[in-house]
Amino acid sequence: MLPKDVMLTAQKEFVDWNKHGTSVMEISHRSPDYLEVAHQAEQDLRDLMDISDDYAVLFMHGGGRGQFAAVPMNILPQNATADYVLTGSWSKSALTEAQKFGKINVAANCHTENGLGSVLPQSQWQLSKDAAYVHYCPNETVDGIEFDFVPEVDKPLVADMSSCILSRDIDVSKFGVIYAGAQKNIGPSGLAIAIVRKDLLGKARENTPSIFDYSLQLKHESMFNTPPTYAWYLAGLVFKWLKKQGGVKAIEQTNIAKAELLYNFIDQNDFYQSKVETRYRSRMNVPFYLMDESLNTAFLSESKAQGLLALKGHRSVGGMRASIYNAMPLEGVQALVDFMQDFANKHG
Amino acid sequence: MLPKDVMLTAQKEFVDWNKHGTSVMEISHRSPDYLEVAHQAEQDLRDLMDISDDYAVLFMHGGGRGQFAAVPMNILPQNATADYVLTGSWSKSALTEAQKFGKINVAANCHTENGLGSVLPQSQWQLSKDAAYVHYCPNETVDGIEFDFVPEVDKPLVADMSSCILSRDIDVSKFGVIYAGAQKNIGPSGLAIAIVRKDLLGKARENTPSIFDYSLQLKHESMFNTPPTYAWYLAGLVFKWLKKQGGVKAIEQTNIAKAELLYNFIDQNDFYQSKVETRYRSRMNVPFYLMDESLNTAFLSESKAQGLLALKGHRSVGGMRASIYNAMPLEGVQALVDFMQDFANKHG
Repeated sequence: MLPKDVMLTAQKEFVDWNKHGTSVMEISHRSPDYLEVAHQAEQDLRDLMDISDDYAVLFMHGGGRGQFAAVPMNILPQNATADYVLTGSWSKSALTEAQKFGKINVAANCHTENGLGSVLPQSQWQLSKDAAYVHYCPNETVDGIEFDFVPEVDKPLVADMSSCILSRDIDVSKFGVIYAGAQKNIGPSGLAIAIVRKDLLGKARENTPSIFDYSLQLKHESMFNTPPTYAWYLAGLVFKWLKKQGGVKAIEQTNIAKAELLYNFIDQNDFYQSKVETRYRSRMNVPFYLMDESLNTAFLSESKAQGLLALKGHRSVGGMRASIYNAMPLEGVQALVDFMQDFANKHG
Repeated sequence: MLPKDVMLTAQKEFVDWNKHGTSVMEISHRSPDYLEVAHQAEQDLRDLMDISDDYAVLFMHGGGRGQFAAVPMNILPQNATADYVLTGSWSKSALTEAQKFGKINVAANCHTENGLGSVLPQSQWQLSKDAAYVHYCPNETVDGIEFDFVPEVDKPLVADMSSCILSRDIDVSKFGVIYAGAQKNIGPSGLAIAIVRKDLLGKARENTPSIFDYSLQLKHESMFNTPPTYAWYLAGLVFKWLKKQGGVKAIEQTNIAKAELLYNFIDQNDFYQSKVETRYRSRMNVPFYLMDESLNTAFLSESKAQGLLALKGHRSVGGMRASIYNAMPLEGVQALVDFMQDFANKHG
């Protein structure tokens, strides 16, 4: 879901951008007008996340999955080890991909506390002595588990922020690499953002594909190859929209309100349940379960009839999942809660 | 440049696709509606190029440059050799990237005939005895050199068709791999198409990034990771548009007419020149030069004032370049020729 205002602007400009009589996707990525779009998007992202000049901000191809490979190819030397913290489906996938490129130590494994999904306290992690970096996924989209702390490690910290970037205030200086597939909080699929501390650059393996080489892309301002120009433009519109909303701190307050509304309803209603420990509940993706799962099909069809789409949980975990990213307004969550209440009244 | 009809359709559907009240870029790539778009796009491409079931058709991230790496990672075994035929800027870039992954033999080098850009006759190529494949670029975008024949080799033939795919009738069965970045004749940047003969699959190197693994992507219908959904949708609209134009054979006739109009004008006018041997002149990208290059700046500014954009040649070759891809109508080429005549009259 993208912000409605962004979509309406993009639609208006679709065939006649900037009075060119043509679409932004049809002009050269090297034209001055496009470069202005590209540079402004980078600057707006830097402003929103308060990213210092110690970091490169790269706009790349290949989504989050591409970055699963790009990270070890760029910053894991041959024969070195990287630590991976597993909290769910996406951190596991990152681990599987990284294993192609070197030795990976599982520093912590998926964890339950009182039968609820949880994060293993950092004191119990088995970190390697000489890890090249420590990787984790601050928000697990499928499992609905979100870190409420930033790990304190003495190695470069690498975070897959695909599903939480720009949703809450973070201190970028605590990280070595932050990456994100664009399709949750930034823009359409096909774009990935990588924010890389510059002292980590210049060590890519010789057989790193150019499109994944952080140093090369920095040198060419993410244009060594033709970038995904339209996705980059849309990302720029989203960044502008976010600034207009008051920036990350403001949207974070809205996100907290949205999440509280939904979790409070779930907790106070014995028709539904969450299976994640309270402090690690995601503000972005809320998996929940009907107590009587035989009503799942009815729930999905009735919600769809109400215009509430895509509520089916990931096939690996079942149940339901509400995606309440930045672009989802509080009213959207209220509409969901209202429906859930009506459904409970009707079927309870 | 994309076909006007395609852009207008996409604009109309931008915020309300298929009566969903939402954009096609906001719905899940696993939803039945999106899968229908994806499958139809593949089928239309198969129809247009007459691609048999012996070939996988993959919709991938990373553009043409990504495929420069994907090809050797998938089909060049360690310690094996691949032959590369160099005819210009893009085949050279493909070679440079492939050298990261194995031994590359330059089977032919860029060639001039009578001072004009040309293709070395195949009889003079130095092909390796045991090459895993032979790579060439049928149309060089920067240099304006296009093959008028398909090489006859007894190894899998790999072609970078980024700037000529769907512009002329080809016999897919002569190729092992055809790949193309989308942004010339297919759709927006960010998408690459790979058409891979299935007997070449299953040999990817262990450290091939998943997003580049042909076999894995085939198994998951190009959805092992979230694909660039909006670009795929737009590609589908372009394929439908091309069918409506009568398919590849019909658009080829238009492309021939467009190219003849422009080259004939250049040849008959001593104000301009082409620097490519007649039989190897590209139908898609026409580099040309003013005899008096001191008029270049005037040419560019006056053409821009007439709404004729992006005529500046690539910085590596200078001069001018007319891009006359499928989406450019004959009238567009006529407008260019008219301007060129007026400019010659005025400054001659």
